[in-house]
Amino acid sequence: MSASFPPLRDELRGIEPYGAPQMAHDRVPVQLNVNENPYAPSAELAASLANAVSTVALELNRYPDREFVALREQLAGYLNASGGSDITPDMVWAANGSNEVMQQLLQAFGGPGRLALSFAPTYSMYPEYARNTLTEWAVGHREEDFGLDLDRARALVEERRPSIVLLPSPNNPTGTALPPEAVSVLCEAVGDDGLLVVDEAYGEFRRTGTPSALELLPRHRNLVVTRTMSKAFALAGARLGYLAADPAICDALRIVRLPYHLSATTQATASVALSYVDELLAHVDDLRVERDATVSWLRGQGLDVADSDANFVLFGRFADRHAVWQGLVDRGVLIRETGPAGWLRVSIGTADEMTSFRTALTETMESRQERMEEQR
Amino acid sequence: MSASFPPLRDELRGIEPYGAPQMAHDRVPVQLNVNENPYAPSAELAASLANAVSTVALELNRYPDREFVALREQLAGYLNASGGSDITPDMVWAANGSNEVMQQLLQAFGGPGRLALSFAPTYSMYPEYARNTLTEWAVGHREEDFGLDLDRARALVEERRPSIVLLPSPNNPTGTALPPEAVSVLCEAVGDDGLLVVDEAYGEFRRTGTPSALELLPRHRNLVVTRTMSKAFALAGARLGYLAADPAICDALRIVRLPYHLSATTQATASVALSYVDELLAHVDDLRVERDATVSWLRGQGLDVADSDANFVLFGRFADRHAVWQGLVDRGVLIRETGPAGWLRVSIGTADEMTSFRTALTETMESRQERMEEQR
Repeated sequence: MSASFPPLRDELRGIEPYGAPQMAHDRVPVQLNVNENPYAPSAELAASLANAVSTVALELNRYPDREFVALREQLAGYLNASGGSDITPDMVWAANGSNEVMQQLLQAFGGPGRLALSFAPTYSMYPEYARNTLTEWAVGHREEDFGLDLDRARALVEERRPSIVLLPSPNNPTGTALPPEAVSVLCEAVGDDGLLVVDEAYGEFRRTGTPSALELLPRHRNLVVTRTMSKAFALAGARLGYLAADPAICDALRIVRLPYHLSATTQATASVALSYVDELLAHVDDLRVERDATVSWLRGQGLDVADSDANFVLFGRFADRHAVWQGLVDRGVLIRETGPAGWLRVSIGTADEMTSFRTALTETMESRQERMEEQR
Repeated sequence: MSASFPPLRDELRGIEPYGAPQMAHDRVPVQLNVNENPYAPSAELAASLANAVSTVALELNRYPDREFVALREQLAGYLNASGGSDITPDMVWAANGSNEVMQQLLQAFGGPGRLALSFAPTYSMYPEYARNTLTEWAVGHREEDFGLDLDRARALVEERRPSIVLLPSPNNPTGTALPPEAVSVLCEAVGDDGLLVVDEAYGEFRRTGTPSALELLPRHRNLVVTRTMSKAFALAGARLGYLAADPAICDALRIVRLPYHLSATTQATASVALSYVDELLAHVDDLRVERDATVSWLRGQGLDVADSDANFVLFGRFADRHAVWQGLVDRGVLIRETGPAGWLRVSIGTADEMTSFRTALTETMESRQERMEEQR
């Protein structure tokens, strides 16, 4: 028997599966590490979901609607109320989480001999999508404030000729939104040989005055705007990502999608949640207020804090960020050790959870100060 | 603007999305075309599903269990009662339909420079999985009775050195099961450089005396047996495919799976259905009886009929199979025009549906006979 069993592709050997470290709730009760929405569906919404499933269940022996026609209509309606205009159902596509949407985009428009480009620091899953689809991966770099220098970004696009540019707005893990001119300049630089994918997973959390890239869809046919129901809709457990783009782009995704990829229960769940949009977006407003308060408070502690249009805040910089992260864990608060060296990311939770975070961080910083003094 | 927008990969240009032709139920009420289980979940099962979702719904704001630990335990238990033995949860993997399971297998063990091999006629999605994962695709051929000539099959494996051999048992669209010696001979021929994937999507429908490849798992570490809840469990709408294999193979799939690929609702739905296994498998027994009766009746009409261990039957041969298919559609019965030239495939429905099928086929054959006589 060969020592190399199982016969995994060479490129994948030794790679650890992706995933945020998980800790039991009873050990670390305040979990602010994966940008979940802290507001669980209401009892009324949960009952509606169960009711929809009880209807769908009676036909679960049949394959689901391969084209999820009803859901695409609802998503188009929602997008037109959320920064878009004239978005029609044939401009909408969806899959099991925006990570499947991204993988399908790279399967159709990336692959061997093609390049996907982003600007670091950015979402750590992107290179995994590229690897899974055998797409070459390259990164440019963001400025010190985590924004893009448009001249440098355009020059990089013109030099490398990517088939796909992946740009989260707001960016994860920094929270930085892209100005519309950045989207337009890069769409033009990419041209018809590629797509610019603006990942608005956190789009609904943007600050007043920050526009959505959906507004630019009528002007750039190579623009794709992705969204998810995991964050603003508080449905991370239901796995529904989607996008708006030119109908020809959606048709291309139909070639690579696995048939019946969206279950009847997923379609029903997403559909019910969309009918509760007012309730769900009211919580988004609460989280935006809490986010802005968190930014102010962290700055008041003398810390560096990135401007955030998302439901999380990147702050630092710490000589030993792992020690700070551990100090918070020891006090029952789990945040994420991610982003550039010295920074930490906290997801925005409820007011009570943010109080716990502030207390834990204050204590951690004081205790580390004491320890530093003892060591002298 | 370039004429080639959107910038789809060259290999995908002009390809039509995969999918069985769909017809409205009000136009063609008896649908025997996609091997669905005709028995809808009972009212009691539907209520249990809704009840489980009402519980899960209250935490849908959180990501699902990435490792679906509870579901893997249940699936292992079920497999041990369905032909397997000593299957532990670390030998079980699942995804959104067995097509996603297959895609993950090819992502991990196929890819550029590697070959996937099957034996035609076989499931028409296999070459699409290979194409989506940039795996080279080759087919050997089945004998006249749709079985394998083991010497020829082994010689082909030894010549082509595939990384993955895909073998459905029972085979789709012929219904042919593989004997255990075929699985063993091919596992040995493939060796440690590849995997033999026995696709038992229709495994529960096998005739008495036809063993499952699950029995061979202890003897061949390169054997993968896939199953689905779409057929025997009557859950095509819920999308749950799974497999049993060496734990190291499951670990390899963790590298290419998208994180949180199985929603909390999918996990809950599958889990509840597994607790109704007796009710669901009773329907499987009814379908096996109906399948055997259909085979006998078709043979009684003087038709060629392939032995079937599945919930469908391949029969023929017709000089103009499309005309026969159309004759059935005109009489309200939708079957599938698939398989080798001259053959047609009918899924096994309820007793009433099979009566409609027999009547429609009798009328179609008589009317075509008359027309042939008129044309003389």
